[in-house]
Amino acid sequence: MNVADAIKMKRAVRKFLDKPLTDDVVTTILNAGRRSQSSKNNQAWQFIAIRDKQILKDLSGCGEWAGHIAGAALCVAILTPDPSEKFQIMFDAGQAAAFMQLAAWELGVGSVPASLYEFEKTRAILGFPAEWHLRIALSFGYAADEEKLSAMPKKGGRVTLDEVVHWEKW
Amino acid sequence: MNVADAIKMKRAVRKFLDKPLTDDVVTTILNAGRRSQSSKNNQAWQFIAIRDKQILKDLSGCGEWAGHIAGAALCVAILTPDPSEKFQIMFDAGQAAAFMQLAAWELGVGSVPASLYEFEKTRAILGFPAEWHLRIALSFGYAADEEKLSAMPKKGGRVTLDEVVHWEKW
Repeated sequence: MNVADAIKMKRAVRKFLDKPLTDDVVTTILNAGRRSQSSKNNQAWQFIAIRDKQILKDLSGCGEWAGHIAGAALCVAILTPDPSEKFQIMFDAGQAAAFMQLAAWELGVGSVPASLYEFEKTRAILGFPAEWHLRIALSFGYAADEEKLSAMPKKGGRVTLDEVVHWEKW
Repeated sequence: MNVADAIKMKRAVRKFLDKPLTDDVVTTILNAGRRSQSSKNNQAWQFIAIRDKQILKDLSGCGEWAGHIAGAALCVAILTPDPSEKFQIMFDAGQAAAFMQLAAWELGVGSVPASLYEFEKTRAILGFPAEWHLRIALSFGYAADEEKLSAMPKKGGRVTLDEVVHWEKW
């Protein structure tokens, strides 16, 4: 799948088949995040790859819209330094998240990010140290609705180019 | 170019040929950003696409490591709501930035992000309103060093998978 098609066709997948991802697929996704660029190449992230159903279920209760994690075949928790330290931290996490999700899409694997607001609860569940912080985790899995993979972009799903682009100045 | 290769081969390009990008290429890059996913699909971004050499030069002075903007064929300033409002804002900007840069790479166009620290100066140069904020801009152009496009990943350029991934828990 070329990059342009992946970007054009990718859509959020929140409902997943109860079908595991092979280790190869999981490794490809994680490597895409690992290879992502970052500010000064500092790679200020750690990933926790979760397939254990109980942990998935526990994490799914840590954000209002995070329920999809319970049904994911894989969840990747993106740990970062304190996001309030500098604006690059979540920007770089976003770049890594985009790389992982596009790499997954190419393999026919859907995904969606979840915001996690229960900071201390996620820390207790995953046991990561104080210097790391978790704000966003990605759910991955095969789409329950297989048509999602080949569906054309929804009308009105994004604003038009004219609505989002300015030329030379505002 | 498939997604996996784009992710594997992409590297930062900071020195560009003095060769313009066609309107088609510029539109493809901007559309990739426009199509990117965002928290609750709120698309909380505006892009300023800059090719004017004086504006590029002016912007290049707004960050310690932003000098490459002066030589870019295109700069895309990613405007967001106040990044301190919520952690999703820069995360989503990062996703859009990754989409634009991978789309460009597929077309043989290099890129690199720049952090811009002179907030009021960028606002004066580009004339955007108070509710929008600029922290990161992307430089795009054909690489002065064409070998960058086909070079294998540098040894030691990224930490190993074992250094960045935890399984199930920390």
